[in-house]
Amino acid sequence: MTKVGIVGVTGYTGMELVRIILSHPELDLAYATSRTWAGKPLAQALPAVKERTELRISLFDPVGAAGAAEVVFLCLPHNEAMDAAAQLVGLGTRVVDLSADFRLKDADVYEKWYGSHSQPQLLTKAVYGLPEIYRDRIAEASLVAVPGCYPTSVILGLLPAAQGGLLNPDSIIADSKSGVSGAGKEPKADLHFPEVEGNFSAYNIAGVHRHTCEMDQELAGILGQPVSITFSPHLIPVSRGILSTIYSDPAIAVDADGLVDLYRERFSSEPFIKVRSIIDPLPSIKDVRGTNQCIIAPRVDSGNGRIVVVSCIDNLVKGASGQAIQCSNLMLGLPETLGLEDMPLLP
Amino acid sequence: MTKVGIVGVTGYTGMELVRIILSHPELDLAYATSRTWAGKPLAQALPAVKERTELRISLFDPVGAAGAAEVVFLCLPHNEAMDAAAQLVGLGTRVVDLSADFRLKDADVYEKWYGSHSQPQLLTKAVYGLPEIYRDRIAEASLVAVPGCYPTSVILGLLPAAQGGLLNPDSIIADSKSGVSGAGKEPKADLHFPEVEGNFSAYNIAGVHRHTCEMDQELAGILGQPVSITFSPHLIPVSRGILSTIYSDPAIAVDADGLVDLYRERFSSEPFIKVRSIIDPLPSIKDVRGTNQCIIAPRVDSGNGRIVVVSCIDNLVKGASGQAIQCSNLMLGLPETLGLEDMPLLP
Amino acid sequence: MTKVGIVGVTGYTGMELVRIILSHPELDLAYATSRTWAGKPLAQALPAVKERTELRISLFDPVGAAGAAEVVFLCLPHNEAMDAAAQLVGLGTRVVDLSADFRLKDADVYEKWYGSHSQPQLLTKAVYGLPEIYRDRIAEASLVAVPGCYPTSVILGLLPAAQGGLLNPDSIIADSKSGVSGAGKEPKADLHFPEVEGNFSAYNIAGVHRHTCEMDQELAGILGQPVSITFSPHLIPVSRGILSTIYSDPAIAVDADGLVDLYRERFSSEPFIKVRSIIDPLPSIKDVRGTNQCIIAPRVDSGNGRIVVVSCIDNLVKGASGQAIQCSNLMLGLPETLGLEDMPLLP
Amino acid sequence: MTKVGIVGVTGYTGMELVRIILSHPELDLAYATSRTWAGKPLAQALPAVKERTELRISLFDPVGAAGAAEVVFLCLPHNEAMDAAAQLVGLGTRVVDLSADFRLKDADVYEKWYGSHSQPQLLTKAVYGLPEIYRDRIAEASLVAVPGCYPTSVILGLLPAAQGGLLNPDSIIADSKSGVSGAGKEPKADLHFPEVEGNFSAYNIAGVHRHTCEMDQELAGILGQPVSITFSPHLIPVSRGILSTIYSDPAIAVDADGLVDLYRERFSSEPFIKVRSIIDPLPSIKDVRGTNQCIIAPRVDSGNGRIVVVSCIDNLVKGASGQAIQCSNLMLGLPETLGLEDMPLLP
Repeated sequence: MTKVGIVGVTGYTGMELVRIILSHPELDLAYATSRTWAGKPLAQALPAVKERTELRISLFDPVGAAGAAEVVFLCLPHNEAMDAAAQLVGLGTRVVDLSADFRLKDADVYEKWYGSHSQPQLLTKAVYGLPEIYRDRIAEASLVAVPGCYPTSVILGLLPAAQGGLLNPDSIIADSKSGVSGAGKEPKADLHFPEVEGNFSAYNIAGVHRHTCEMDQELAGILGQPVSITFSPHLIPVSRGILSTIYSDPAIAVDADGLVDLYRERFSSEPFIKVRSIIDPLPSIKDVRGTNQCIIAPRVDSGNGRIVVVSCIDNLVKGASGQAIQCSNLMLGLPETLGLEDMPLLP
Repeated sequence: MTKVGIVGVTGYTGMELVRIILSHPELDLAYATSRTWAGKPLAQALPAVKERTELRISLFDPVGAAGAAEVVFLCLPHNEAMDAAAQLVGLGTRVVDLSADFRLKDADVYEKWYGSHSQPQLLTKAVYGLPEIYRDRIAEASLVAVPGCYPTSVILGLLPAAQGGLLNPDSIIADSKSGVSGAGKEPKADLHFPEVEGNFSAYNIAGVHRHTCEMDQELAGILGQPVSITFSPHLIPVSRGILSTIYSDPAIAVDADGLVDLYRERFSSEPFIKVRSIIDPLPSIKDVRGTNQCIIAPRVDSGNGRIVVVSCIDNLVKGASGQAIQCSNLMLGLPETLGLEDMPLLP
Repeated sequence: MTKVGIVGVTGYTGMELVRIILSHPELDLAYATSRTWAGKPLAQALPAVKERTELRISLFDPVGAAGAAEVVFLCLPHNEAMDAAAQLVGLGTRVVDLSADFRLKDADVYEKWYGSHSQPQLLTKAVYGLPEIYRDRIAEASLVAVPGCYPTSVILGLLPAAQGGLLNPDSIIADSKSGVSGAGKEPKADLHFPEVEGNFSAYNIAGVHRHTCEMDQELAGILGQPVSITFSPHLIPVSRGILSTIYSDPAIAVDADGLVDLYRERFSSEPFIKVRSIIDPLPSIKDVRGTNQCIIAPRVDSGNGRIVVVSCIDNLVKGASGQAIQCSNLMLGLPETLGLEDMPLLP
Repeated sequence: MTKVGIVGVTGYTGMELVRIILSHPELDLAYATSRTWAGKPLAQALPAVKERTELRISLFDPVGAAGAAEVVFLCLPHNEAMDAAAQLVGLGTRVVDLSADFRLKDADVYEKWYGSHSQPQLLTKAVYGLPEIYRDRIAEASLVAVPGCYPTSVILGLLPAAQGGLLNPDSIIADSKSGVSGAGKEPKADLHFPEVEGNFSAYNIAGVHRHTCEMDQELAGILGQPVSITFSPHLIPVSRGILSTIYSDPAIAVDADGLVDLYRERFSSEPFIKVRSIIDPLPSIKDVRGTNQCIIAPRVDSGNGRIVVVSCIDNLVKGASGQAIQCSNLMLGLPETLGLEDMPLLP
């Protein structure tokens, strides 16, 4: 059993880490922090853990965290995670950061989208925590930056086509739809229940959403040239799940079966990626609810040859806490799927 | 008061016509049909109309309909509406058809998507019921084909940019999201409540959905060249509303304010189209719920200059029954907005 | 046209009053206040009213309100409405108060549940705004206290049985279920969208909810003896609607048809109350959504003779703003149903 | 590993059994039937099991089932399960029946509510599968009748008070609210998504619902006298979960803390029952979603001393398939909680 800790345990990603870790056969939740609940039993903040753990919530303190846990998961807002990460790494503790603070390689880009960065020297040291691309580097990393939820769905949805040279880089559009938990646990006027129920809306479209630069960075890395995708996030009136519909003009013509074959081959040894062929039903977000899976349906428009990919994840699992555990499994030399084998809760 | 009739009154578009007509100061619901409910009072099929009408439901019969009503609304499945329309038009009754049967001008295109057409001679006589384009012809028409719900949202969303020469015809993508009432009132396995609740899915993407050809036809008419758009419909877990996010590469560069100005000018005298400027909030489907409005937010992607338009309607009002009433107002020389002035039900 | 004003226009009951008043043929919205939006056009706070009114939002000031409006609707929190009401009444302006401040006749009871009352002398002057009981007194009133949403559904649901002597006063239980808009527009942790979606909960049961004393007061008035009902509120994951299931042992045995007959007779001239007989379907909240109706299904348990009544309203219409307009129609000598004739928005 | 089978695997209770069994360390899903899917891989009917099982779906045949599985779960409609159960029991196979066919001890009562019974001789042999009452008998049983979902929530909610002599048998009312999956997977007009979304309704109230007699039977057994409870089921617009609010006049006065103490003591060794004290939050259905728990909050009305209990379960887990596995764990001598330890999926 490896002792692990969670900094910021009462938010949605912290809660989801708790759910996974308490069922994980090789992880022991030994440390958890919250400014609001410090000093109280974890079971008071999260009644669902009653009778499962006696852990008491602390105030974050790097030395305490480093002493208590071998791996620490940071569930802090961006700008707040950077210093905590640096302190922990300095103390020799391995860090899996779920914030945006170490996802971007270029401090200037970070500054443009998120404000100034106090630990730019760690940006290149941090590994982008998408195992389907960076598996080996994650295993060795001392600091992993778990990808954003939207970028996870979009990058995985494009990966085989991008690596296969099928994408026209100037034509990429990601139209993504997310459940509301992606916006966090803090109540807000526009996320008040009566405002979202029965509703559907677009927000931060046309170059404004912060996840855009993260997708641009990773796609540019694969394609070997600058990329500026059009990204349109939308809010679905559900708690969990992201479905991204992704478009690209084909760089070279591809047919429907060929595209599926390419995806199947690329992902054949990926434990969490499921490719839906032409005869399979298109995925929906409930197909992945509560699981670490990403289901992808690559398609070719029969009218005009455009590539259209549907990619589904649970934003709190493969889009955050599950992916974090997948990374920590790799870091600890554990089977990559350990603790992440739940089937979806249907219906 | 003008006597009107509804053929197929118990489906969702029929019910919505009833709701509007019973509050309309110049329309008198004098005839209504349903195979299942024939012989029963309308108030038995639709308890909400109790004490508002004594009307009894009939079996459809063209002579009876023509005798009872000056304008008849057809709420029948495609393939069934065509003969009823031909019979009524032959008897001198004006027809507003909510099915797909007279939307397409080309019988071969109809046949490819919907099966054979028994009344091809009426295709050119029928007027496409989008007042924002065909207002004058609708006023004179004996047969109006009310547009599909998706095409209404997409064509209106693109109209000023298309007419202004801003669209690259090869690059048009419409990513649409619809409430479930658009699929009709008939229960189906994939629309059973537990399957849709908490869920979100894509369906009939990549050139398969029948509304694609209708959008292609109308856009080709404006652009003066063949168009093959990529259309991706999705299912939102709500009852009503469509939000379409529409993309095009710019044929000529356009800036954000210029695009809004173009839309404002084009729609300045349109009573039901609201344009949201850069500083306005993006529209959401509840903003139009229960109303005949279409709210449009034209935007330019700050990263790559792509045109991105969000367009919202209530699929049962501006996307069907409200638009049908708007057309019949025009046909009868009534004020276009009569009976269609409801504000949205918020929250 | 009568000039009216709304104090606290941006909350849910204020918004709903705006929706009704702007369609009302005899009311003119001449005054509206909000602390947050003072000085701005109403159309900025509520985009749905664009092109319908030029009204600008003010800060509340009694003299200004009295000068601008003949009737003022108060949409303030309890404890805040009492002084505003007193000032306006003192200036000769008629007041319809949607808060709890004047619903209770006994200042001691008010103090026990809500805190101290600064205007106890007005408690007996105020008329409880339930037209089905107090129609004549409302017409003459200078100050009307619009009933709570839960009490409206429960009192109307019990009224004929109570007046008919059928209730055993010690056995009354009201199990009520409400949409979330009843809790107001202010975002709260437990009303954050992901907490309510897919969920259902009880709250403030077993004698704790403040609406209990209001029901006790009104039922005691009818029954002529003290009443202590058991009231259990629950939260439904929808925006609008209340369904109350109400139980009483019969004081004298009653059969199913007899109970329906009693209800039909009592409510025969009530424009907004619909009684569902044994062969009618049970009501649901969407049957009344957006309307001022209360649908009631009185039943007798076939196993044990207990009276079971289902009563449905829209909490924002008959449970608040619609009832307020119904009262002001009476106060102004207008037809009671004016501006309140909308059919429900289905589905 | 014990080989088990599921008859009727594609309905909601069958699917949920699959989900639990495939993660259960001591059960091996060796047999599954469906009339519609016979001959096809289970993974085709239920895509979520891909890569988890190679099992192929059969047509039900008693000898085949008996040969393949040691314990068979019957997920058939009532009236259909009785003969299958008799055949399997006759072949020496142990049966866990999720239908209503063996829940009632009295064939006349069965006939009144469900129609004639072909295997009345098995009614007394069958054990009612509520481990909290019949644990020892279940362990020995060859045929277990899994309780209905509503009765599970209500009987557990009343058990300590009933056994403690606190209930007035003439005063018991159960007001229950259920998610839609309780009505099964078959699409129906009144469970079509747009009819249920945004809605809430009562159905089969006042002595009509078939679960009433099951509750009467079990409560009569505890109380030692005939019982006729008033049971009111309602439909919540969610997929999963039951919350029952249960009322009884106290047979002897009880205070709030005393009632909680009684419940705590009675359930102290029950692994799946959680009692919420006065200072704990009231339970909601998401607190138990996906789990086999029943959370109970016993309360005393501060105004009139009435007992009010809130009881929550997941209708598909503790209300059906989870309880079935709990019973089979007992039958097989396995730890009772094996395979049933999931935490709820929040939010």
